[in-house]
Amino acid sequence: MNRFNDLADFSVAEIDSLLELAQRLEREPEPRALEGKVMSLLFLSPSLRTLASFQAAMQRLGGGSFVISPDMSIHGIETRPGIVMDGVAAEHIREAVPVIASYGDVMGIRAFAERRSLETEIADKEFEELADLVDTPLINMESAIQHPCQSLADWKTMDELEIPRTGGRFVLSWAYHPRPLPLAVPAATVKMAAMRGMDVVVLRPEGFELPEPIMAQARTLAQTSGGSVSETAERSEALQGAHVIYAKSWTSTQHYGNRAGDQALREELVDWCVDEPWFETAQADCRFMHCLPVRRGVVVADRVLDGPRSVVLAEARNRMYAQMAVLHRMLKG
Amino acid sequence: MNRFNDLADFSVAEIDSLLELAQRLEREPEPRALEGKVMSLLFLSPSLRTLASFQAAMQRLGGGSFVISPDMSIHGIETRPGIVMDGVAAEHIREAVPVIASYGDVMGIRAFAERRSLETEIADKEFEELADLVDTPLINMESAIQHPCQSLADWKTMDELEIPRTGGRFVLSWAYHPRPLPLAVPAATVKMAAMRGMDVVVLRPEGFELPEPIMAQARTLAQTSGGSVSETAERSEALQGAHVIYAKSWTSTQHYGNRAGDQALREELVDWCVDEPWFETAQADCRFMHCLPVRRGVVVADRVLDGPRSVVLAEARNRMYAQMAVLHRMLKG
Amino acid sequence: MNRFNDLADFSVAEIDSLLELAQRLEREPEPRALEGKVMSLLFLSPSLRTLASFQAAMQRLGGGSFVISPDMSIHGIETRPGIVMDGVAAEHIREAVPVIASYGDVMGIRAFAERRSLETEIADKEFEELADLVDTPLINMESAIQHPCQSLADWKTMDELEIPRTGGRFVLSWAYHPRPLPLAVPAATVKMAAMRGMDVVVLRPEGFELPEPIMAQARTLAQTSGGSVSETAERSEALQGAHVIYAKSWTSTQHYGNRAGDQALREELVDWCVDEPWFETAQADCRFMHCLPVRRGVVVADRVLDGPRSVVLAEARNRMYAQMAVLHRMLKG
Repeated sequence: MNRFNDLADFSVAEIDSLLELAQRLEREPEPRALEGKVMSLLFLSPSLRTLASFQAAMQRLGGGSFVISPDMSIHGIETRPGIVMDGVAAEHIREAVPVIASYGDVMGIRAFAERRSLETEIADKEFEELADLVDTPLINMESAIQHPCQSLADWKTMDELEIPRTGGRFVLSWAYHPRPLPLAVPAATVKMAAMRGMDVVVLRPEGFELPEPIMAQARTLAQTSGGSVSETAERSEALQGAHVIYAKSWTSTQHYGNRAGDQALREELVDWCVDEPWFETAQADCRFMHCLPVRRGVVVADRVLDGPRSVVLAEARNRMYAQMAVLHRMLKG
Repeated sequence: MNRFNDLADFSVAEIDSLLELAQRLEREPEPRALEGKVMSLLFLSPSLRTLASFQAAMQRLGGGSFVISPDMSIHGIETRPGIVMDGVAAEHIREAVPVIASYGDVMGIRAFAERRSLETEIADKEFEELADLVDTPLINMESAIQHPCQSLADWKTMDELEIPRTGGRFVLSWAYHPRPLPLAVPAATVKMAAMRGMDVVVLRPEGFELPEPIMAQARTLAQTSGGSVSETAERSEALQGAHVIYAKSWTSTQHYGNRAGDQALREELVDWCVDEPWFETAQADCRFMHCLPVRRGVVVADRVLDGPRSVVLAEARNRMYAQMAVLHRMLKG
Repeated sequence: MNRFNDLADFSVAEIDSLLELAQRLEREPEPRALEGKVMSLLFLSPSLRTLASFQAAMQRLGGGSFVISPDMSIHGIETRPGIVMDGVAAEHIREAVPVIASYGDVMGIRAFAERRSLETEIADKEFEELADLVDTPLINMESAIQHPCQSLADWKTMDELEIPRTGGRFVLSWAYHPRPLPLAVPAATVKMAAMRGMDVVVLRPEGFELPEPIMAQARTLAQTSGGSVSETAERSEALQGAHVIYAKSWTSTQHYGNRAGDQALREELVDWCVDEPWFETAQADCRFMHCLPVRRGVVVADRVLDGPRSVVLAEARNRMYAQMAVLHRMLKG
């Protein structure tokens, strides 16, 4: 495996094999598997879980890692091609990325969307340009439209909870948040749940539709796996019989890149805070999922997050084991 | 051992066993003892010695660590319970701490006092609330009122210098500093020296009395160990026959949380700078101790700090070996 | 080996032995060579390549490292001797450096020039004062006038490209840059190429002469090795028959420490940007070298940097292997 960028690049059998490896490494540590191996971690956007879980993942396998973020360069890193660098930036990404990559056996890159053009970001243009500069195996640690490590961890979490694949109802619900957030998690999540064979419902207010190319890809994945994908703004319809409510806020796609338009739409939607009544018609043991960080009392009520439905800590912990499996597969074969 | 929070939680025999282990690990490295093991390091307050010595300690035992500080989260970490998070903070400590803990086999937390209520801080309420969120073994890397790693290192340093336990005179002296500093080091130190069986004298100006609950705890520890604890503002009386002068500045307990009141008292006390005359009636080989960082020419004169009495570098180096012993005991039993 | 500060401290045979070791470690990993060993990394100036390559180097050999920079101390680190520390800084370098050193088996220090006095900086006074505080083996990670790790990596790069030692023409060319940069790289490079037995030409505008003590040292090294050292402002003369054009900007030595004087001279020199025409009379396979970071379109044209002449990425990658050899020699003998 040379790239870990999108679960949809793999078959379900390949994902299952990764998940088995993850569970094996959780049960039976291999503290020398990657001895002398190095992961380079480039964070062009901030991180807590990803930063910690990748460092821990490499260490548990006997390897190491180093972290680079742009503020460590003398005066930031220039990204524009063909520019005369007589301003502040002293280094160009075209040198920085291959150099950093060259010190590692595997690289992880995190680069959020700049939210300028939806087309550019669905194509993950920024990340792909960086990826082109990397010769080693490469892991997408969250880009404009991908977050495969989160998805693999979420899949593992649902398997452990025995949440049904075929016939399992997975509601990805938009939630209120004071700021417009990227599309990476909802896009990756809808595809993951579809691939897992679940009946996926995207519940979101008007104006927050997921991009059609993402929905189309999810529908194709569902077809192969025996699942389904639908979209609605009707909460009561969506939540009926749900096995999982997966909450996440994201930017308005109708007003993409238009902060004022997004804000006007958003400020009417503060009641999109997942709370106990949301679970009334769901399965009795319906779970609450979220990728974290989560704003308490805004995205979800404390009583849900602190209650027995919430599996957010298991999801976060599974990031580490999922990533250990990916690293092991990439570097040990 | 599941918690390392307060030397007073252990017997002298248990401390001696830890110190033996520390010395053994110093003499006979065990570079694979903790292979594949990970320490999570959460710094809610800044650090240099603690940061470096814990990373080095894990590496010397074949393990690894990762460091998290709040500025690494997207917009800081919220700590207030029950709050609606519609402001700047995007993550709550109730998620952050268990997630970070879940990536490690052992966790270290540093969280200084906020110096609002003396009662709250003597009870170490802030740290204990964080500790309640942690499932792994936990090391207190300095809280409002505890600093057990410093105390263990100081004990080791005195043992190596053959400073007497019973009959050894330990003077913990307040020193001038332009800012009001926390109580953790003086509180931990007076208890450590009492537990070690020494005759402990707390030398401090009026208004800087150590809190009575701490002094009471120290007196109880002294009773068990055959030592004694007293307190005075009289320098000449305190220093007579001293084996150790341990300097440290701390906030006024009389004006606790009242910066102006503390300042008024403090600015008359610039002559509380440990200098050669302080040692005139002490033991000939009386040592100077300080936990570092120390302000030269303010807390202590250069000629003392640079002279043969000073053992501050040995204390700092012993932080690493003391912590290696704690980690080894926690993770290897 | 206890100090790695200046290639000129070693014989060519010793350098060759280090380079052989570097190549062996590149071909045949030794992931347990330094198990349980720790490198302390003190960065008093910012870094990307050095930070990443040393961390990776230790990990590849089975050891670890930790990083300290002054902003990690509570309020910065005081460096002035004999000062009364009643201001902002809470820690003095006289404590900080030996404490940090004491947690490692080997230390690396980076400390750029402050560009106040050329004499002080040629004597590397600031670095030497820090070095005096260190008891462990010590690696200069770039100081006012030294950068031995870069030089060793550059030597390795040229060997691999089979660029001739005796008879090889090495042109170290000044290049335009909007800011006055330190002398460490040009000083280290001219000495390295002279020691390698090459015919070294320093090409620079008037006012940017390298300091005479450095040139004298380079000439002495050349005498021993069978090379030569000359200096000119005539581009066409310099470049004729070149095997390597090594570009680097540096401060005006004529206006040393005088920013306005340097600026006045410098702003006339924007055409000192290495471009294809510079290579017209050089060897057909003449290489372009630079230590990075490099300003595109300012120091060098994109078409050179992105073309087949450029070996800047190989130089950067060789930093890691060169440093692995130094660490292995220091800690394994």
